[in-house]
Amino acid sequence: MSLAWQCKNKSFMETINKKVYYHDTDCGGIVYYANYLKFFEEGRTEYMNMRGVDLRSWAQQGFLFVVKKVEMEFKSPARYADDLTVETIVSASRSASMTFHQEVKRNGTLLVSADTVLVCIDGSFHPTAMPEELSSRLK
Amino acid sequence: MSLAWQCKNKSFMETINKKVYYHDTDCGGIVYYANYLKFFEEGRTEYMNMRGVDLRSWAQQGFLFVVKKVEMEFKSPARYADDLTVETIVSASRSASMTFHQEVKRNGTLLVSADTVLVCIDGSFHPTAMPEELSSRLK
Amino acid sequence: MSLAWQCKNKSFMETINKKVYYHDTDCGGIVYYANYLKFFEEGRTEYMNMRGVDLRSWAQQGFLFVVKKVEMEFKSPARYADDLTVETIVSASRSASMTFHQEVKRNGTLLVSADTVLVCIDGSFHPTAMPEELSSRLK
Amino acid sequence: MSLAWQCKNKSFMETINKKVYYHDTDCGGIVYYANYLKFFEEGRTEYMNMRGVDLRSWAQQGFLFVVKKVEMEFKSPARYADDLTVETIVSASRSASMTFHQEVKRNGTLLVSADTVLVCIDGSFHPTAMPEELSSRLK
Repeated sequence: MSLAWQCKNKSFMETINKKVYYHDTDCGGIVYYANYLKFFEEGRTEYMNMRGVDLRSWAQQGFLFVVKKVEMEFKSPARYADDLTVETIVSASRSASMTFHQEVKRNGTLLVSADTVLVCIDGSFHPTAMPEELSSRLK
Repeated sequence: MSLAWQCKNKSFMETINKKVYYHDTDCGGIVYYANYLKFFEEGRTEYMNMRGVDLRSWAQQGFLFVVKKVEMEFKSPARYADDLTVETIVSASRSASMTFHQEVKRNGTLLVSADTVLVCIDGSFHPTAMPEELSSRLK
Repeated sequence: MSLAWQCKNKSFMETINKKVYYHDTDCGGIVYYANYLKFFEEGRTEYMNMRGVDLRSWAQQGFLFVVKKVEMEFKSPARYADDLTVETIVSASRSASMTFHQEVKRNGTLLVSADTVLVCIDGSFHPTAMPEELSSRLK
Repeated sequence: MSLAWQCKNKSFMETINKKVYYHDTDCGGIVYYANYLKFFEEGRTEYMNMRGVDLRSWAQQGFLFVVKKVEMEFKSPARYADDLTVETIVSASRSASMTFHQEVKRNGTLLVSADTVLVCIDGSFHPTAMPEELSSRLK
């Protein structure tokens, strides 16, 4: 299934609202670049929550997710008190990993996009196939 | 032993250097108020390290330190690229807790001060007396 | 007007919901102590927003708020994925400053409390009386 | 000049030391992924400082640097109290932008790498060629 198709098909996308506070900004007057990674983490967490995936419960069963790779592109800066949205889709999925595509927008205008690869690891920190129950919920 | 005396007696004080980076600031152009707590944590950690106290090793033996209370007062703001110092002394010590007095300065001028009470807890999160070996090093 | 009375009188209190994400925690498994100051900042911002106070607009007119003092007390730790509330009231108000009392709770149980003094400053960073329109909204 | 050659030629590389504190970690027990971006920012800042580039002074003259793109790859986690190094080189340079390649290591072992594209902008936030004096120092 192509990313373009998924984007068009809103049912695969999760959107959260995110307001910019002082602690998100830097002295350049804009959101500090590392803080978008916090926004993206929140977006992925809510994507999973909406599909009934409780990361704490999976961690107790020995399945953890770690970020393997992230690519982030900055189009336009967000500022203090901006009302933003963070859109999240799963753009690729394999047995032991999945890729999220995410976009931060203000009034529908793209500000920052990110592609993040998460790998499922076991208690010994080795990559491991996601259990069927988990992967089926996230696809 | 009074705080004034300890402050005068430099051998009881530990000083670290701290440079202000973009990620420490906010859109007001100054260091974000919560970030001084990170500076103070670093100051306390180095105070302990200089006295041979390895927090990881004590944690493995079941002795953890948690912050119980902090009072912070802001005199003047620090800015991007400032070279700061963080001075740390132990201003009070009891069997299961100790109080740190700390000051952030720029060229000797006081910017921010803090008094932080740390409590020693055991594995069940109950306050517990610090082992003699530990408390003697920190006094 | 006493703090106790205000606390009882819910109309003076503003409550926001706050979920704990990975980026709020530290390797002790709990919310990092400095991050509560971010929660408290968000609580104060929403308190002001609910009363029609737009900090950006006041800043453009030359009235800024800076934190002068903060006292924070930790009763019990918050953890990853906790659903918290942040309650905010103004506990004292003077011509050029005001004090916020705030409490972080989980299911009604107090975890962390804070008293924060904010000072109103002008463009030259000197304390200045708040304009009547501003102070009347915040009381 | 190839990246491989530059890496071999240590004179083009700047290295800073970075110790991991509590505030860098998350409840997974490791350094939180967004915090490496702070380490990388510090590495780039020191790279510039060592070459006599004062970002504040250039900002006052109307030349600002913004991050346009960042790619980060995670090989192995850093933990509390680790002593890390951050290595920084300029891997590509154009009239209005430059790319930094950076690596976080522990005892010589690569943990995290990043490639960051910075764009030089003018006061109107438009890309602009770097002044000769600036670009010659950074190459």
